[in-house]
Amino acid sequence: MVGLGAHINELDTPALLLDLDALERNIETMAEYIRGVPAELRPHEKTHKCPIIAHKQLEAGAIGITCAKLGEAEAMAAAGIRDILIANQVVGEPKVTRLVNLAKHSDIIVAVESNGNVRHLAEAARMKGVRLNVIIEVDVGNNRCGTAPGEPTLELARDIASHPSLNMRGLMGYEGFCQNIIDLEERREKATGAMAELVSTRDLLDDKGFSTEIVSAGGTGTHMITAEYPGVTEVEAGSYIFMDATYSRVEGLEKYDPALTVLSTITSLPRPGIAICDAGRKTITFEPNRPMPRVKGLEGISYEASSEEHGRLSVEGGPGLRMGDKIEFIVSHCCTNVNLYDQYHCLRDDHLEAVWEITARGRSQ
Amino acid sequence: MVGLGAHINELDTPALLLDLDALERNIETMAEYIRGVPAELRPHEKTHKCPIIAHKQLEAGAIGITCAKLGEAEAMAAAGIRDILIANQVVGEPKVTRLVNLAKHSDIIVAVESNGNVRHLAEAARMKGVRLNVIIEVDVGNNRCGTAPGEPTLELARDIASHPSLNMRGLMGYEGFCQNIIDLEERREKATGAMAELVSTRDLLDDKGFSTEIVSAGGTGTHMITAEYPGVTEVEAGSYIFMDATYSRVEGLEKYDPALTVLSTITSLPRPGIAICDAGRKTITFEPNRPMPRVKGLEGISYEASSEEHGRLSVEGGPGLRMGDKIEFIVSHCCTNVNLYDQYHCLRDDHLEAVWEITARGRSQ
Repeated sequence: MVGLGAHINELDTPALLLDLDALERNIETMAEYIRGVPAELRPHEKTHKCPIIAHKQLEAGAIGITCAKLGEAEAMAAAGIRDILIANQVVGEPKVTRLVNLAKHSDIIVAVESNGNVRHLAEAARMKGVRLNVIIEVDVGNNRCGTAPGEPTLELARDIASHPSLNMRGLMGYEGFCQNIIDLEERREKATGAMAELVSTRDLLDDKGFSTEIVSAGGTGTHMITAEYPGVTEVEAGSYIFMDATYSRVEGLEKYDPALTVLSTITSLPRPGIAICDAGRKTITFEPNRPMPRVKGLEGISYEASSEEHGRLSVEGGPGLRMGDKIEFIVSHCCTNVNLYDQYHCLRDDHLEAVWEITARGRSQ
Repeated sequence: MVGLGAHINELDTPALLLDLDALERNIETMAEYIRGVPAELRPHEKTHKCPIIAHKQLEAGAIGITCAKLGEAEAMAAAGIRDILIANQVVGEPKVTRLVNLAKHSDIIVAVESNGNVRHLAEAARMKGVRLNVIIEVDVGNNRCGTAPGEPTLELARDIASHPSLNMRGLMGYEGFCQNIIDLEERREKATGAMAELVSTRDLLDDKGFSTEIVSAGGTGTHMITAEYPGVTEVEAGSYIFMDATYSRVEGLEKYDPALTVLSTITSLPRPGIAICDAGRKTITFEPNRPMPRVKGLEGISYEASSEEHGRLSVEGGPGLRMGDKIEFIVSHCCTNVNLYDQYHCLRDDHLEAVWEITARGRSQ
């Protein structure tokens, strides 16, 4: 409700804040890194769900964007973005119809991994009169979707080639299980093993004459490994723009700054050593096996526990907090956290410079 | 995108479904229980965030509703609901100004627990020309907000009485720490202890001549204890209308039926025994110390793991699932789950009867 130019302390809470200097630094830091390696960057939009941020990534040199869901891709296409990889399967009606219609307005690439889905996509593309770009999702150890590396992937490539309405573009292999491994060498070993499976599968398809111009992999935790692995052509990192308490622990990401916080108000000081704030699980996501939110800029205060609309802080070692004081938290997991909010309040030097809609929030269909 | 009357299998996924027969049964089951006990029901709106559901609860005999946040109360007041308890502190500008303005259009009662907040509310109410209803939040062991029972609560009551613009209505004590205790007798013992502290504090205030017409407590897990505890005048249960995988384990709630599910599609069958669906943590919340979502209506299938947009199912013992099959999950925690969605798809006999907006989703300010 406050206007642009307002000071951070005038903002109502809980609010999702974006530090624009940190965001811009993170975008440029990654762009600079990518300029020095063979792979390109196709950053993941699922982290921010916000068209203007995607456009900033493209302006900084990204070759396109990655989306998790068709609904996100539709939102980004509506904002004028053409080159979009949906790093997921689009299954069943009405989604397949939506997909081939969207392909008339954007250069969509979609991940496939089963014959039935390939057949469905091919038929829908043929009926609509589009040639749909597909990429095979290979399971490189993530224990989720994907064809097995090697022969099963080759089999699916043969199937795709039999459909003139499909355009085989390459392979994708997401080593998600590596992203949060704290130790860089352990992460490197596991991610390298995953990339070896992906690239050897690419070699097999190349040998058989199948087009594999794209080999897509990597997240924020592994981008410095996958982007340098010979044969990987693009990386899908997303969280580097915001960072969070989870990635702050992961070795090798020190050059990225926390840009995303939740602003909260102290609403109760019930006992010495304890403060209660108004940011709970409906405004800061808290998932198993992830660290608690971290207090930004204040020593000796920790976020101890949360319920739906309350956070409990241990303030024993910190500065004296008063009722109504504002406090900022670096969230536990940026991607799920953004999905709770409709807007970013974007600050520079602690003053509100913009309010950006999180257009693709909740677009999980 | 499908029209009313559509069959459940025509709905796109992930979608939040509401079984209207189960919802109506749950509302009536609670209403019938409440008719037989001394306490009244003021159900918690934070569970559903949806005006039409609140109106149905009122039609069934609820004396008003409870909200967690001012933004929720504003949404409910805009839908014509007058009697609203905000079971939380409203702290700082601009919220206090919003609160006293809302008090011109609804019979708002707000929880207080500190002198500074009381002073702020009193001054704002005086300036606006309203007499604001307040209730003291007493900490009955929840280790969150609230005055300590006994003398500290009496002190705050004296402070409130010194402000003519405030109308002291009573006490509130939420025994949240008892709600999910599975064993009924253990829960009864702990909740009874909490109520003893609350009601003895009420007695102390009564003795001193302070108005305590309201003594509010209880959630779904404890309503059958608190509603029968002498001196408690109203209970705040909310989740009974939907139930979830957490409350399904809690003894004594067997007469309430699961009404809230997430409809999902099988998008991958990567290996024997495993299926992947399109409902992950952005559509089914997963918090520490809560059970996994439960599959509705199919034996031998369990939800094993989730990432942001994928759920991994163990299907070893279940019926053969095919790509594109629809599957329903009883969510882990109904209150946070609802906050991810903009709409309920409301079904009766597996056909779409209504689409209800979740008006107060994200209204955490």
